[in-house]
Amino acid sequence: MNAETDRASYVTRLLEDLGSIGVERGGGITRLLYSESWRQAQAFLADVMAEAGLEVRFDRVGNLFGRLEGTSPDAPVILTGSHVDTVRSGGKYDGAYGIAASLSAVLSLKERYGKPKRSLEVVSFCEEEGSRFPLAYWGSGSVSGILSPELADTAEDPDGVLLGDAMKEAGFGREDQPDPRRRDIGAFLEVHVEQGVILERTGERVGIVETIAGQRRYILTVEGEANHAGTTPMSMRQDALAAAAEMIQMLEKAAVRAGEPLVATVGRMKIAPNIPNVIPGTVEFTLDIRHLSETLLTGFCEAVLGKCRSIAVRRGLALRVQTALQSRPVPMDPLLTGRLERICRERGLAYRRMMSGAGHDAQSFSSLCPTAMLFVPSRAGISHSPEEYTAPEHLETGLDILTEMLHELAYEDPL
Amino acid sequence: MNAETDRASYVTRLLEDLGSIGVERGGGITRLLYSESWRQAQAFLADVMAEAGLEVRFDRVGNLFGRLEGTSPDAPVILTGSHVDTVRSGGKYDGAYGIAASLSAVLSLKERYGKPKRSLEVVSFCEEEGSRFPLAYWGSGSVSGILSPELADTAEDPDGVLLGDAMKEAGFGREDQPDPRRRDIGAFLEVHVEQGVILERTGERVGIVETIAGQRRYILTVEGEANHAGTTPMSMRQDALAAAAEMIQMLEKAAVRAGEPLVATVGRMKIAPNIPNVIPGTVEFTLDIRHLSETLLTGFCEAVLGKCRSIAVRRGLALRVQTALQSRPVPMDPLLTGRLERICRERGLAYRRMMSGAGHDAQSFSSLCPTAMLFVPSRAGISHSPEEYTAPEHLETGLDILTEMLHELAYEDPL
Repeated sequence: MNAETDRASYVTRLLEDLGSIGVERGGGITRLLYSESWRQAQAFLADVMAEAGLEVRFDRVGNLFGRLEGTSPDAPVILTGSHVDTVRSGGKYDGAYGIAASLSAVLSLKERYGKPKRSLEVVSFCEEEGSRFPLAYWGSGSVSGILSPELADTAEDPDGVLLGDAMKEAGFGREDQPDPRRRDIGAFLEVHVEQGVILERTGERVGIVETIAGQRRYILTVEGEANHAGTTPMSMRQDALAAAAEMIQMLEKAAVRAGEPLVATVGRMKIAPNIPNVIPGTVEFTLDIRHLSETLLTGFCEAVLGKCRSIAVRRGLALRVQTALQSRPVPMDPLLTGRLERICRERGLAYRRMMSGAGHDAQSFSSLCPTAMLFVPSRAGISHSPEEYTAPEHLETGLDILTEMLHELAYEDPL
Repeated sequence: MNAETDRASYVTRLLEDLGSIGVERGGGITRLLYSESWRQAQAFLADVMAEAGLEVRFDRVGNLFGRLEGTSPDAPVILTGSHVDTVRSGGKYDGAYGIAASLSAVLSLKERYGKPKRSLEVVSFCEEEGSRFPLAYWGSGSVSGILSPELADTAEDPDGVLLGDAMKEAGFGREDQPDPRRRDIGAFLEVHVEQGVILERTGERVGIVETIAGQRRYILTVEGEANHAGTTPMSMRQDALAAAAEMIQMLEKAAVRAGEPLVATVGRMKIAPNIPNVIPGTVEFTLDIRHLSETLLTGFCEAVLGKCRSIAVRRGLALRVQTALQSRPVPMDPLLTGRLERICRERGLAYRRMMSGAGHDAQSFSSLCPTAMLFVPSRAGISHSPEEYTAPEHLETGLDILTEMLHELAYEDPL
């Protein structure tokens, strides 16, 4: 076995080991923030880091760092990693791959080249998915400072447990533990599975993220009048579902016309009274819209919400629009992105510059330091599911590019 | 007080009394077949009939009859009434009005004219709504013979209670009780609240039912592919909800184009996984279509189901269609309908010949004997709700016409 194969099989093994923590009966993995399985996973990774000779540290919110000290310990740190938490019944790769690849890359650099100039740190962020508490990026957002520590006193999980209490219960949140906020980060790199079908369908090996999409989420409520399906003529109806169907049709057409990379999705819908022989009186549905340009995103949202209002008015129905989420697009660093591209070209790898439609820890860092992000293909685009899978050769490609980037940034670039 | 006012206030009082049986906390009335409140209601009506001097009889399934014996006891019986059961959280008028008006009419005829030539019977059918067991018209269908007694051995309520066991528990289903099947009925008359908005909007006082609509109910299941809302480009989606929305839009347009009295309704919809940031993979929805012409109904259903299939094929999705219900239109008797029309004209009442979009007990009888049905306005068309209301003047109009019809049929027509 050569060194490359070793490093790749190290990633695969680590994913298997990590993927055995939090397994449910149906095969899915659940590691919600500060839960028992979450604690086991962070403790396991801390052991792996320590055994590999990294300097291990947890911060106050439970982020785990493994540090390879540089010859210039005061130079900004090169940080790489991803998140250890999962959605309910998630897969083995989302988040975990970024941690495993970072660990493997840093260990192989250490083995081959010894001490870097700049310190290298592998991070296992405590939380990214937003699956337990009504917030996301608690790990990376606490490091970059975009999330306030005071959220610990307000955010509650569905059982009414306060974030701060759950944190203490898991052994964190103590004043003597290091403040998560970091001001010494020089760059952040994240590799991740794509969670989409683009790379698989185009046959490209690597996605270089240019921008993490801006996102709007709305909840639209159409109020009509519930009535007997047999005794109310078509001309006397105020059918909330017929109106919603017209809106959804219009949205789909407008999104297709707007062109890629805009995406618009109605994912959840609630109908009342939801009885076969009663005309729906109320329909509530979510609208999720994403694009890499804030201007185009805003323009699109205004246009389609305006059209939804016109549809409601024409039908004599009421429409309520609540904004549930509003996040601006986050650009990745053009210099780092350019380097990733060069590395791919040098290796003759088919790659694509692309938007990330999903949010990632990387978005917490782009206003703090140069940040870059790399995707490898996801089989059938499936994610947040036990079916999530990425072939070993793709895991290896991502690892290889990450290793090269870390080498350049930590060992080669002049201080 | 004159006699007319007396008869009308008798109806109002009876509706109040009956409406106090089965009242729930929220104000709705629930009298499911063979339940405690149902038993109380039938027992109350039996007492009222007996006190008024009618000959009271329950049959084996729990239908209650109050008979005013004619001078020619072997001549076919003139039967009039409606159903005593309600939906969950129903109103005071649906079914109950038909019983109360029939009782009032027969008692006032008895008072004014004594014994009729043909026997008159008031009926309180045990069940029409299909709200407890997965069948409807158990009362009238058992009398006319269109429903088999063997259903008692197979139909189960949601708690797994067999219809036959519930019947016995309520004191019925015994061999020594009269067989519900009747072969001595000469005509059936039913008055009912419209449960629709047509009469209120047109300002007409009376609806004369020409036909009870034929009905088809389908369950359509659209199978696409659930995927991440952020990472799946519009061109790579198999969005089951977008497809369903296109189908619903097409259905609405086709129904409007087909013209009255056709009605088509999508009332219930189930989306999976029903999460804001996941493209819906599966959508199941019901389709309820009604018309007075069997030919047009069949043609319309075939056409729109064909178009649904085309939409699915064009989008690369699978579509499954199950037929849940199929009932043919039921015409009312033209001679009786003509008489109702004449009576309205004589009284200078604005009336309309119309289709009943809802099913009624009358449809059990039209193949057995001349059958007619009369509607009075429902406020705002609301029904199957505690908000159900019909003004006393409308209750009186229906009563007046019914009384005149019963008088002609039982006292005046030659034997």
